[in-house]
Amino acid sequence: MARPFTKMHGLGNDFVVFDARQDALALSAAQIRAICNRRTGIGCDQLFIMEPSADADVFMRIYNADGGEVSACGNGARCIARLVAETQETGAVSIETLAGVIEGTVDGPGAAIDMGVPKLGWEDIPLAYGMDTLEMPVGWEELDAPSAVNMGNPHVVFFVPDVEAVPLERLGPQIETDPLFPERVNVGVAQITARGEIRLRVWERGAGLTQACGTGACAAAVAAMRRRLTERKVTVRLPGGPLSIEWRSDDHVMMTGPAEISFTGAIAL
Amino acid sequence: MARPFTKMHGLGNDFVVFDARQDALALSAAQIRAICNRRTGIGCDQLFIMEPSADADVFMRIYNADGGEVSACGNGARCIARLVAETQETGAVSIETLAGVIEGTVDGPGAAIDMGVPKLGWEDIPLAYGMDTLEMPVGWEELDAPSAVNMGNPHVVFFVPDVEAVPLERLGPQIETDPLFPERVNVGVAQITARGEIRLRVWERGAGLTQACGTGACAAAVAAMRRRLTERKVTVRLPGGPLSIEWRSDDHVMMTGPAEISFTGAIAL
Repeated sequence: MARPFTKMHGLGNDFVVFDARQDALALSAAQIRAICNRRTGIGCDQLFIMEPSADADVFMRIYNADGGEVSACGNGARCIARLVAETQETGAVSIETLAGVIEGTVDGPGAAIDMGVPKLGWEDIPLAYGMDTLEMPVGWEELDAPSAVNMGNPHVVFFVPDVEAVPLERLGPQIETDPLFPERVNVGVAQITARGEIRLRVWERGAGLTQACGTGACAAAVAAMRRRLTERKVTVRLPGGPLSIEWRSDDHVMMTGPAEISFTGAIAL
Repeated sequence: MARPFTKMHGLGNDFVVFDARQDALALSAAQIRAICNRRTGIGCDQLFIMEPSADADVFMRIYNADGGEVSACGNGARCIARLVAETQETGAVSIETLAGVIEGTVDGPGAAIDMGVPKLGWEDIPLAYGMDTLEMPVGWEELDAPSAVNMGNPHVVFFVPDVEAVPLERLGPQIETDPLFPERVNVGVAQITARGEIRLRVWERGAGLTQACGTGACAAAVAAMRRRLTERKVTVRLPGGPLSIEWRSDDHVMMTGPAEISFTGAIAL
């Protein structure tokens, strides 16, 4: 029997979503890989299953295209928030994931997600040994003195005069696997273009160069704000498009961006 | 308003199909590019619109992912044949395209398509000057003495001991653009593995290495049969999977292979 699904994306980071709140759904890793195949399946970066939750409006189960389950995805949480908001009276949505409960607010085709409190201690990044995470006394070729921020995953951010001039495809994998980062690291290069605007490219741990890394945008904004290079609310321009990031006075980081429905469908499982 | 579609593939060559036989549909090149985008649209190699035909069961309009209209597609014709057969009493389907009417026969999840009569004269390939197309006195590095066959598009086929050992990514573009081929050429390397079996890799004109070139499979089979290397009916094993090719006594080439429905959906246009 064909099972309904929704295909969504946030800045080109794309997702297949099944709603299993009423009608349970268990998929094998082989089924997930088949669904995520862009030629013979539906095609996506990640597959989400919406399940009932005791502590939130929905439980969001997250699978990578290789079939493995993971804990969180910022661009995806906006999409789930939008789907949940469509079936309730308020735009305020709570989403439970393996990483905890995320609060979101939906407004039209966009959503704001509370990405939580950034962790800034060297042991929280984690780094291999103690140092100041604001301006680290380390460097790789022309990249040096970065900041480190943990936004649920570890990020290192380099401030550069021109993000396009950095050979991130070459330096990214080198920095990602440096022994300084025992859990490896996401590598951002950020260019301050105004008091309220950052251009950013991110080498994602395990994924390489991507179009729109949500946690990377948060990490770059926090690092820039710690250095007083920007206001506390900025637009981060990624290759896939812009995200709005605000580091609130309660220390929480809010990420606002699009959550688009590409199409709906049904697939035999 | 959301418009229904069917997503299909033949050996991983994938298609979005709209049925406009009852309800007319005109798409701009920009709309086609948006629909074919694999992250923000539905995603496919080609988009088909099924329209009414005076001379056949259906008119198949064919667009590449860049929005340009083209005349024919073998893997796609199998898919259209299957969709048409589902709404009529017989498995015999006629499909009109800009290149003429194609006859097909549907049997379960597969379809056989009459790919027409191969053209073998040097001026029909076309070549830049006259020569025997069975064993051409030309060569590029380790590749030499190919056959040439026109299956609606020009093909050159080299018989080699091991298709995997040929650096087709390097030699393909060189041969494709050789002045010997005034309309450029599709380049196949074929390995005879049995009297009824050919392994084949194809460098497609304008597209590069592909998973399953239907006309390339026909051209390789015809060339092998002309050289009496195989029977008149063979299995051609492409990277995407097998096609069955028969060169019938009436000179027509029949191509049989899968036509799979991946999922159905609806998209706002």
